[in-house]
Amino acid sequence: MTEKLTGYKGEAIVALKGSGVKIGDVIRITRDNDVFEGVLMPRYELADNKHIVIKLRNGYNIGVRVSPNIKIEKLGVGAKPTFSPPPPPKKKPGLPEVAIVGTGGTIASRVDYRTGAVHPAMSARDLYSVVPELSDIARVHAEILFSLFSENILTEHWTEMAESVAKYFSKGMNGVVICHGTDTMAYTAAALSFALQNLPGPVVLVGSQRSSDRPSSDASLNLVNAVKVASGAPFAEVVVCMHDSTSDRITSVHRGTKVRKCHTSRRDAFRSITITPIAKVKMNNIIMLTENFRKRDVRSELFLKPDFCDKVALVKFHPGLDPGVLEWYLSKGFKGIVLEGTGLGHIGKYMLPSIKNVIKNGLLVGMASQCIWGRINMNVYDIGRDLQNVGVVPLEDMFPETAFVKMSWVLGQTEDVEKAKKLLLTNIAGEISEKTRFEEW
Amino acid sequence: MTEKLTGYKGEAIVALKGSGVKIGDVIRITRDNDVFEGVLMPRYELADNKHIVIKLRNGYNIGVRVSPNIKIEKLGVGAKPTFSPPPPPKKKPGLPEVAIVGTGGTIASRVDYRTGAVHPAMSARDLYSVVPELSDIARVHAEILFSLFSENILTEHWTEMAESVAKYFSKGMNGVVICHGTDTMAYTAAALSFALQNLPGPVVLVGSQRSSDRPSSDASLNLVNAVKVASGAPFAEVVVCMHDSTSDRITSVHRGTKVRKCHTSRRDAFRSITITPIAKVKMNNIIMLTENFRKRDVRSELFLKPDFCDKVALVKFHPGLDPGVLEWYLSKGFKGIVLEGTGLGHIGKYMLPSIKNVIKNGLLVGMASQCIWGRINMNVYDIGRDLQNVGVVPLEDMFPETAFVKMSWVLGQTEDVEKAKKLLLTNIAGEISEKTRFEEW
Repeated sequence: MTEKLTGYKGEAIVALKGSGVKIGDVIRITRDNDVFEGVLMPRYELADNKHIVIKLRNGYNIGVRVSPNIKIEKLGVGAKPTFSPPPPPKKKPGLPEVAIVGTGGTIASRVDYRTGAVHPAMSARDLYSVVPELSDIARVHAEILFSLFSENILTEHWTEMAESVAKYFSKGMNGVVICHGTDTMAYTAAALSFALQNLPGPVVLVGSQRSSDRPSSDASLNLVNAVKVASGAPFAEVVVCMHDSTSDRITSVHRGTKVRKCHTSRRDAFRSITITPIAKVKMNNIIMLTENFRKRDVRSELFLKPDFCDKVALVKFHPGLDPGVLEWYLSKGFKGIVLEGTGLGHIGKYMLPSIKNVIKNGLLVGMASQCIWGRINMNVYDIGRDLQNVGVVPLEDMFPETAFVKMSWVLGQTEDVEKAKKLLLTNIAGEISEKTRFEEW
Repeated sequence: MTEKLTGYKGEAIVALKGSGVKIGDVIRITRDNDVFEGVLMPRYELADNKHIVIKLRNGYNIGVRVSPNIKIEKLGVGAKPTFSPPPPPKKKPGLPEVAIVGTGGTIASRVDYRTGAVHPAMSARDLYSVVPELSDIARVHAEILFSLFSENILTEHWTEMAESVAKYFSKGMNGVVICHGTDTMAYTAAALSFALQNLPGPVVLVGSQRSSDRPSSDASLNLVNAVKVASGAPFAEVVVCMHDSTSDRITSVHRGTKVRKCHTSRRDAFRSITITPIAKVKMNNIIMLTENFRKRDVRSELFLKPDFCDKVALVKFHPGLDPGVLEWYLSKGFKGIVLEGTGLGHIGKYMLPSIKNVIKNGLLVGMASQCIWGRINMNVYDIGRDLQNVGVVPLEDMFPETAFVKMSWVLGQTEDVEKAKKLLLTNIAGEISEKTRFEEW
């Protein structure tokens, strides 16, 4: 029984149980002089125990406070709400062409009201019905590449995405939008930044922090603005387009190698690290915030370098970290480790012998900082110099996640450690910034 | 030879080598019509190759640009600059008493000009000579507990520090200042927050991002303000007192469980996470920023709980993380693991069997988020619910470093996993904030 009333608890579940209704049923709630009719919705979040949520006929969800005199009746077994969009608007011939590639995540999903499961919904027709204004911006081609929550995305999926983007550009698209779960979106953005070089147009990753069923969903604005960027932005880079603030008006466009999810739940969770965002999208305008970008050029011939090594680990240092973990990775055939050290790039001195050992055995070891902001500098303190002497590569101002992705990509390009070191420290897609006077203070 | 000219390279080392001088020598540099005399200093940072740095008689360092017509002469073997402070000022009897405990790090060190090594200098007499205004704020008792760069600090050092603080409060001190390297200062601040309960006065961790030899050093302001806080602040908590901005006027005071080093090199590297700082110190004023703090009360009887378990690991999830690492920790006798998951508290679904296995074998597993800001919520998506079902503990709004320290402390208090789980989720020192409306968006 309880499974059928997903997410409800306390007073709410008591009231529901007594009435024999199930999620997805059409119900009537009578409370004092109020009557509400609609489909009983599941509750997902750490919801309170006092409200029952129904979807009204007009499509809005409301929460009805449970009270002692509440009456709940089942009006009918709710058909699984079918999704029958209007016929898609005619594609307007003068508009740019944009591919939208679905990979899963909250933005590309809608809740199955009966099971509470989340399903992708991503034909072009579906998209036009959810966000009809897309047809005024671009001629959209939509495809579901796969349907994964982003924590399940692996290096092989990065490869698939890169190949899909390359295919769409070869077909003459002006830009490509990738719908992606937000959890590891920044990792994927970095991966595609390395795998897709010399792009003719933008590749825009977009997601949502709130599903489109919720009134506060950010899905629609993010998607519209992502398509705007893909259609018309002057740059040709891999970027992330997400809410800029807690208001629902502006999105920021972040460089794929310099962006990070910095909040678990806020709609403006994504932030550019060390640099300002490339652009903002406000109403119908793309406002550039920098002159430092790669220009869109339809004649650019894309270089596809989609190979990644899946034997790379990111190891975060903490007080007392057991150095044996490095040797365990060595024994498992790993090729590279990014250490997430403290401050300017430090780890406990007691770890030096293990590090020396794994490097001697062919592992590539790089150092990023758990501070996230700022730059590695392993010339200031003895431990930094010692680490460099045994061969640890200081990874400049790449933050740990980008550094991890880059090492995975580098070791997908070459098995030669010396070549890999050189490539690690070569700026490919803005992941290594020029030193600024500011840092030298 | 080169060892004697630490840090020099390029044109600078060529010029120095020709003259036969060594670090620490008193030298004269003649260049065009300019003459500079002073002690030849080593260079540590990613220095350029064009300047020679000498310490002038007035104590300032200058960099002299190497040019073709430069002439360098040795005037004498520089005595290792001895440190002969004036006699300490008389302690003023009406002032509060503050203990300053040195543990190492940049703040408590000065460079040995001859070897380039960094030594602690921390008798009360030394302190008064470096920062004479301390004698107007408090009667200072200084002690060197140990001299470690903070990346080498282990759980046993947290215990020693906690015991030292307890000793000083039992002697009637009004507050205790701990000088500490900045790299892991936030971990130690969290550790002491759990180990020192019911404090009678403040425990203030302080450090510096630039050594006191550098004109831009933050050591002096941070230390003065830390002593002010220890002497007179109205709260009795473990806090971190560090620069508030890039200017040299204000320090922020952060709660020990809610602070993080967020920049590798900036003087204002420390930030309060999720909450505002407790206070700022501006000129002679401690400005409280919240009413939510534990009040100073000399009658409070400190509860010392200094035990930590050193068999706890922090494991950061990244795309494709090998789940075998969890079982490796199990095989090494570990008692607990904090997972640093993505978003609301997720990891790849493929890791579930390993997690189930280590929990079945008695490991305590908790979940924090690599987003850093925000709160874990494992009720929204299937993977979160699955993880909770196998026993993973959602660690609320503790960020990963504090969560790791807390688990180390919790497993130092009890070996019973159920009791440990309960203690993990009990707010001890402000590490778990109340939920706010804001988060529910």
